[in-house]
Amino acid sequence: DFLNALEEVKPAFGADDSELEEQIPYGIIHFSRSIGLILEDAMLYVANVRQQDRLRHTSVLISGPPASGKTALAAHIAMKSDYPFIKLITPASMVGFRDEIAKKDHLHKVFTDAYKSPLSMLIIDNIERIIEWNPVGPRLSNSILQALVTLLQTPPPKGHRLLILATTSQRSVMEQLDITTAFDRQISVPAVSDLQELEVALNEFKAFGDSNTARAAVEAVRGNTSSDDVRVGIKTILTTAETAKLSADPVGWFADQLAGQVARYNPGFGGR
Amino acid sequence: DFLNALEEVKPAFGADDSELEEQIPYGIIHFSRSIGLILEDAMLYVANVRQQDRLRHTSVLISGPPASGKTALAAHIAMKSDYPFIKLITPASMVGFRDEIAKKDHLHKVFTDAYKSPLSMLIIDNIERIIEWNPVGPRLSNSILQALVTLLQTPPPKGHRLLILATTSQRSVMEQLDITTAFDRQISVPAVSDLQELEVALNEFKAFGDSNTARAAVEAVRGNTSSDDVRVGIKTILTTAETAKLSADPVGWFADQLAGQVARYNPGFGGR
Amino acid sequence: DFLNALEEVKPAFGADDSELEEQIPYGIIHFSRSIGLILEDAMLYVANVRQQDRLRHTSVLISGPPASGKTALAAHIAMKSDYPFIKLITPASMVGFRDEIAKKDHLHKVFTDAYKSPLSMLIIDNIERIIEWNPVGPRLSNSILQALVTLLQTPPPKGHRLLILATTSQRSVMEQLDITTAFDRQISVPAVSDLQELEVALNEFKAFGDSNTARAAVEAVRGNTSSDDVRVGIKTILTTAETAKLSADPVGWFADQLAGQVARYNPGFGGR
Amino acid sequence: DFLNALEEVKPAFGADDSELEEQIPYGIIHFSRSIGLILEDAMLYVANVRQQDRLRHTSVLISGPPASGKTALAAHIAMKSDYPFIKLITPASMVGFRDEIAKKDHLHKVFTDAYKSPLSMLIIDNIERIIEWNPVGPRLSNSILQALVTLLQTPPPKGHRLLILATTSQRSVMEQLDITTAFDRQISVPAVSDLQELEVALNEFKAFGDSNTARAAVEAVRGNTSSDDVRVGIKTILTTAETAKLSADPVGWFADQLAGQVARYNPGFGGR
Amino acid sequence: DFLNALEEVKPAFGADDSELEEQIPYGIIHFSRSIGLILEDAMLYVANVRQQDRLRHTSVLISGPPASGKTALAAHIAMKSDYPFIKLITPASMVGFRDEIAKKDHLHKVFTDAYKSPLSMLIIDNIERIIEWNPVGPRLSNSILQALVTLLQTPPPKGHRLLILATTSQRSVMEQLDITTAFDRQISVPAVSDLQELEVALNEFKAFGDSNTARAAVEAVRGNTSSDDVRVGIKTILTTAETAKLSADPVGWFADQLAGQVARYNPGFGGR
Amino acid sequence: DFLNALEEVKPAFGADDSELEEQIPYGIIHFSRSIGLILEDAMLYVANVRQQDRLRHTSVLISGPPASGKTALAAHIAMKSDYPFIKLITPASMVGFRDEIAKKDHLHKVFTDAYKSPLSMLIIDNIERIIEWNPVGPRLSNSILQALVTLLQTPPPKGHRLLILATTSQRSVMEQLDITTAFDRQISVPAVSDLQELEVALNEFKAFGDSNTARAAVEAVRGNTSSDDVRVGIKTILTTAETAKLSADPVGWFADQLAGQVARYNPGFGGR
Ligand SMILES: Nc1ncnc2c1ncn2[C@@H]1O[C@H](COP(=O)(O)OP(=O)(O)OP(=O)(O)O)[C@@H](O)[C@H]1O
Ligand SMILES: Nc1ncnc2c1ncn2[C@@H]1O[C@H](COP(=O)(O)OP(=O)(O)OP(=O)(O)O)[C@@H](O)[C@H]1O
Ligand SMILES: Nc1ncnc2c1ncn2[C@@H]1O[C@H](COP(=O)(O)OP(=O)(O)OP(=O)(O)O)[C@@H](O)[C@H]1O
Ligand SMILES: Nc1ncnc2c1ncn2[C@@H]1O[C@H](COP(=O)(O)OP(=O)(O)OP(=O)(O)O)[C@@H](O)[C@H]1O
Ligand SMILES: Nc1ncnc2c1ncn2[C@@H]1O[C@H](COP(=O)(O)OP(=O)(O)OP(=O)(O)O)[C@@H](O)[C@H]1O
Ligand SMILES: Nc1ncnc2c1ncn2[C@@H]1O[C@H](COP(=O)(O)OP(=O)(O)OP(=O)(O)O)[C@@H](O)[C@H]1O
Ligand SMILES: [Mg+2]
Ligand SMILES: [Mg+2]
Ligand SMILES: [Mg+2]
Ligand SMILES: [Mg+2]
Ligand SMILES: [Mg+2]
Ligand SMILES: [Mg+2]
Repeated sequence: DFLNALEEVKPAFGADDSELEEQIPYGIIHFSRSIGLILEDAMLYVANVRQQDRLRHTSVLISGPPASGKTALAAHIAMKSDYPFIKLITPASMVGFRDEIAKKDHLHKVFTDAYKSPLSMLIIDNIERIIEWNPVGPRLSNSILQALVTLLQTPPPKGHRLLILATTSQRSVMEQLDITTAFDRQISVPAVSDLQELEVALNEFKAFGDSNTARAAVEAVRGNTSSDDVRVGIKTILTTAETAKLSADPVGWFADQLAGQVARYNPGFGGR
Repeated sequence: DFLNALEEVKPAFGADDSELEEQIPYGIIHFSRSIGLILEDAMLYVANVRQQDRLRHTSVLISGPPASGKTALAAHIAMKSDYPFIKLITPASMVGFRDEIAKKDHLHKVFTDAYKSPLSMLIIDNIERIIEWNPVGPRLSNSILQALVTLLQTPPPKGHRLLILATTSQRSVMEQLDITTAFDRQISVPAVSDLQELEVALNEFKAFGDSNTARAAVEAVRGNTSSDDVRVGIKTILTTAETAKLSADPVGWFADQLAGQVARYNPGFGGR
Repeated sequence: DFLNALEEVKPAFGADDSELEEQIPYGIIHFSRSIGLILEDAMLYVANVRQQDRLRHTSVLISGPPASGKTALAAHIAMKSDYPFIKLITPASMVGFRDEIAKKDHLHKVFTDAYKSPLSMLIIDNIERIIEWNPVGPRLSNSILQALVTLLQTPPPKGHRLLILATTSQRSVMEQLDITTAFDRQISVPAVSDLQELEVALNEFKAFGDSNTARAAVEAVRGNTSSDDVRVGIKTILTTAETAKLSADPVGWFADQLAGQVARYNPGFGGR
Repeated sequence: DFLNALEEVKPAFGADDSELEEQIPYGIIHFSRSIGLILEDAMLYVANVRQQDRLRHTSVLISGPPASGKTALAAHIAMKSDYPFIKLITPASMVGFRDEIAKKDHLHKVFTDAYKSPLSMLIIDNIERIIEWNPVGPRLSNSILQALVTLLQTPPPKGHRLLILATTSQRSVMEQLDITTAFDRQISVPAVSDLQELEVALNEFKAFGDSNTARAAVEAVRGNTSSDDVRVGIKTILTTAETAKLSADPVGWFADQLAGQVARYNPGFGGR
Repeated sequence: DFLNALEEVKPAFGADDSELEEQIPYGIIHFSRSIGLILEDAMLYVANVRQQDRLRHTSVLISGPPASGKTALAAHIAMKSDYPFIKLITPASMVGFRDEIAKKDHLHKVFTDAYKSPLSMLIIDNIERIIEWNPVGPRLSNSILQALVTLLQTPPPKGHRLLILATTSQRSVMEQLDITTAFDRQISVPAVSDLQELEVALNEFKAFGDSNTARAAVEAVRGNTSSDDVRVGIKTILTTAETAKLSADPVGWFADQLAGQVARYNPGFGGR
Repeated sequence: DFLNALEEVKPAFGADDSELEEQIPYGIIHFSRSIGLILEDAMLYVANVRQQDRLRHTSVLISGPPASGKTALAAHIAMKSDYPFIKLITPASMVGFRDEIAKKDHLHKVFTDAYKSPLSMLIIDNIERIIEWNPVGPRLSNSILQALVTLLQTPPPKGHRLLILATTSQRSVMEQLDITTAFDRQISVPAVSDLQELEVALNEFKAFGDSNTARAAVEAVRGNTSSDDVRVGIKTILTTAETAKLSADPVGWFADQLAGQVARYNPGFGGR
């Protein structure tokens, strides 16, 4: 029946490696030097929470444009951290709750669970969606927001340690809502910025078999956009390349669709 | 009694071909080259979801002006896909639910059902109406919106595949609400743009018996609007032609009414 | 007791001729040529729903200024249609329901009833009031609005036919709320536009006994307004004439009051 | 106990003459010619509802500035009408109801009661307060407003007659809310406009014993305001005169206070 | 337990002299001539309600800047009135009620109680707080506001007399909310306006022992503000002087703090 | 189970010294002369409440930029006060309550508890968060706000004494909400204002071992920001220094991060 149906999609508590790996279907491609620097900073926070008493409670905001790889990076850091307790909170894991009060209680419960382990990590994915942000109005759940910000700032009981990674693609909304000040540290994830980074990504992904075809694809994009700029997230690039494979004309279809994306993120260009 | 009355209009779960066919009473007329291109792109997504592991979860937004044939095209694609599980979610199928929470739970239930089949398609028709969009205010159901966007982005369980087709005639509202970024792909459906396409449509529909009368009707429209532009949806054109049949003066009545529609969609013209 | 009291005013389901006739206390006066054209178009839709399979579900919006005769015309068309099932839904028939949910359920129930007859007509009178429109805010019942628009667009079960006539004196509100696109056809009802039409109306109504007094009344109005324009609804004209009868000076009182009305609907004039 | 306490102030249904008379503590003073004209128009409506079949249902809006005598005039008309059933609905009679739904139901009940008598009058006093109007926001009870407007426009059952008198001191709010169009007729009540009318009022009321002191009071007001304008409601004038009686210096205190009122209603003057 | 805890702070009904005296810890200081005039006007209303039949129901609004002594004056008038029934309604007496409905019912109950005595006075302290006014939004409880305004205007039963004194430090909010028109009379309470009045107050209070130190304090304030203006409420002045007593340097600390207050109420000055 | 889980984080009532000490992990560093003056004023209020009858009820607002040490100072004052009853109310202590009504009741309960002791102190930490302030909308809990302001102003029962310290980093919001006028006294806490104060703080904290490295860090910050201004809270400075310890290049990493903070609080600078 219906309640059982809801049961079936209720997420299990705690994340095993396979749940984290599912967030990284295309691996981590180093299309730019900043990917390495991001991972370095993140691992510093991982170490501090584990070792420094006065830093036993640290929260980090990972922000970046849509599809830039925020969730994949958080999952990657979690897997490398070797923490005994890791939980992933996503909007999908909260969709089954009846209303904002139930969601708020669930958040509270997840933090309470984390407090029980001596060393925990919580990944709160897509916080603008968790607070039910809607730019029209604007609307959001103030009760979830209040609970979230309070929980971000509440230290775990003495002797317990907690690192919180939260992701968002709406950094300016976070500023407006005064959520950023609730975080101790911030990490900024970039999109693929230009055709050179695009070529690195396509080659590392082996999107089009050999590097000549990859180059041809890059040139076809340049032809469509008449510019070096890309500013499209790595996820969009990789899934578009994947979709193109079954097309009659993979390179043409890819260049066409990518030019459309470039135009969307670079208003002022032509594009379609 | 009343509850039974509500029962009687409760839609059956799952769509058989007859339910899909009902969405296409006037068939699919190729009044423009873009109709063929739309169907080609759509069938590429149908194939990818079936065959590519990393694309097993794809969502497509079909947008276009009112009456342009969005629902008919989605139904046509579904019939051609040969997927074992197809469901059509419409505002009408949700009107019997008491409030937004019940509607949200129903949406959740439909997705949960789809997750059980290895290869499923969901058609979510008229999403601006499903989220109860009302331009004055503006108002909408944020809880349905949040659930919808989350469900659009939640992958089915491993080994399961899901293609989502959603239609809307309010593309700019979708942009404002940040719903478009929740879709992997987009398809844009055009209205009948000019008198030439109108003539193709009237002839293929055999609206006025022979092609001379069709031409006369087109000329009568041109006379009323003093322009080549039409920009009226195919559904409006076909139902107006059908209504005209019983009129005392079919061609005159058709030209009159269509000129009114042209004026409505092309402000700046005269028309009535 | 109280609940019984509410019971007593609960409208009976279905409309008999006497209920329709009550909407037309002053008959239908042809004060302008457009009255005939309106009735002609309306009867074309009546015939199409009865005979054309693909037009078995048609909705018509009848709009016009306050007191212009919209409800009377809808009732008149219904009486002439000879449909076996006719229902009149008015704000008064919904005032006894507790809240918007109950009203929404009632609307749903009425449509469900109509679906059971092979050939039905629904008159939805004063839809701005049914959706509880209030220009300040603005406020309205979004749940009634959503249900209404969905029900307008939902076809009856196969083999069943349904014509919907809805009236409104707030056409621009309907545009703003995007309700007009939910209708297949539109009819526009005019007010009495000038002194010539006023004279026709007064004569046909035999308001002041003989046509000389009617002319005197028209001239008195002209004297008060210094203009040929009237733009006052037929209902206002007829009830003002009726009220004047018991006055000490019928013509003077009528001209005075009507000039006030003219001024109200023609800002810029003097009037009181 | 508490509920009994509420009981004690619950108004009795129906109005006897003493309840109406309480609304007119200072009588009706003819300080201006318009008072007579207002009563004449009102008695025409009283007669029409009683005698004319097509006017058996008439609603009249009595508007005017605060304290201008609207309620007293309505009560006076009711007493002169000799109708068998008269009810007075005031904000005070509704303050004991829990919420807007209960108030709405009460309104409904009062109308239903009126429908049972063959000839009824309802006085709805201070409708802006009955709909809980609050200029900040602005806020109001849309459910009471919708019920009220619908009830105003719903005719009583066949063979029954109903005259509705409603008062308001917020005419422009009524326009904004589109309530004025729900009334068949309108009456406008003036304030005391100038010092000459003020003198008539003070003399007729015998406020200060003899007419010389009244004149002195008028001159003292003129001295304070340096103008002929007054624009203060008759109720304010009479209660201020009454309050002054126990003062050490009645004329001085009266002139002082009235000048303050004049300044309040005539911004731009000095006054205090 | 918790409910008992709430019980413990529930205010007793009715006010005895000690409750009124607590509102006047520093007595009534005549720092300006207007204090005497205010008391004179107030006693006129006290007498009128007691003696004049047509004035048996009078409401007075006492407004003034924060800390200007409004509550103390109302309590003082009540003590001098010798009325048999006096009640003080404050925001604190309503804080224990669950929601606005419960508060509204409580207000209703208090008025009902007052109606039972032949001669009653109600002091409604801080009405902006009783209606839960919040300038941001702005927000307030419309249901409490509506009940309050209605109760202010409802006369007690025949033969009963009621004087209502209400205080507010938000006179312009009262205007906006149209509450002022619900009052029959108004009294305006001033702050201490200049250094001369300040000196009178400090001397009468014997704040700094002898009048030379008081003068030194006044001069120190002048030194800090470089102006004669003060415009600070008497309560602020007296409590600041009281706090200074335990300071190491009473005169210096007082002058410093008062200069800060002066700057706050006289934007444009320096101050701190 | 879930309710037990909530139980586990429910704060104990009353604060022992260890709870207060936890608020001051890095001690109180006198990086500026104003720290001493703040403590002096605070101890004057502590003494007055204890000794002066008319000041037995005093409320103090401690405001300052984020991370400036407001909570630590309040805890420090409480520990030095030697009051028998001290309670700390934080947003975290209220996150477990279901809704605003429950939070409001809790606040009420805490004050009621404090009233029972002859000499109490309440620390209300972060009042903008306790009233659920959200700058977008803006939104807040008006019922908590109203209760809070009323409770701040309600004196404890006779013979009882209460000092309230409240903290906020949103002083201008407090002004807008008119909350500041509810406080008797105000204390303003500064951030570390310039590089000189920064050096004092780093040295006293012994952040980088010896004072030469501290100086190098200060110079590195100057190099990054090209300015003497800092305006960053002491908490941010100390935690950033602490985090840097495990970094490969502590001084470089510290200077980099601090420059970022300086840029955030001093818009117009470069920064990163
Ligand atoms: N350097 C990289 N960083 C992150 N992800 C990468 C990188 N290189 C490749 N990927 C791949 O790109 C995809 C990133 O998708 P991800 O869902 O993490 O993006 P996102 O920013 O979270 O998107 P959204 O804005 O929709 O939440 C993953 O499939 C991941 O395997
Ligand atoms: N090329 C075409 N594409 C789509 N529909 C077509 C085409 N040619 C003819 N039709 C007919 O036009 C009608 C399209 O109506 P449909 O309801 O799909 O439009 P819609 O865009 O969904 O309208 P709405 O905006 O009201 O949802 C159908 O009856 C269909 O049979
Ligand atoms: N040509 C006409 N069309 C409509 N009504 C007419 C006509 N001639 C006379 N009447 C009379 O005019 C009145 C029209 O009133 P009706 O209530 O239909 O107006 P309405 O436009 O529905 O008003 P409202 O805006 O208040 O709903 C009826 O009494 C009807 O008998
Ligand atoms: N010509 C008059 N018309 C009305 N009232 C008069 C007149 N002359 C004297 N009065 C007295 O003036 C008072 C009018 O008060 P009333 O309450 O009717 O005013 P109102 O306009 O209803 O006030 P509010 O705006 O507060 O509702 C009554 O006491 C009435 O006896
Ligand atoms: N002339 C005076 N008028 C009123 N109060 C006075 C006067 N002289 C001295 N006081 C003292 O000043 C204080 C006035 O405080 P009170 O609470 O009445 O002010 P308030 O205007 O009601 O303040 P709030 O705006 O906070 O409600 C009392 O302690 C009172 O004893
Ligand atoms: N002079 C000082 N005043 C206050 N805190 C100091 C001082 N010197 C060092 N500290 C340390 O700085 C930190 C101040 O943090 P605290 O949480 O009190 O800041 P806050 O202003 O309350 O921050 P928030 O705005 O986040 O509430 C504490 O760890 C405290 O030990
Ligand atoms: Mg993500
Ligand atoms: Mg469609
Ligand atoms: Mg009508
Ligand atoms: Mg009145
Ligand atoms: Mg006060
Ligand atoms: Mg703090």
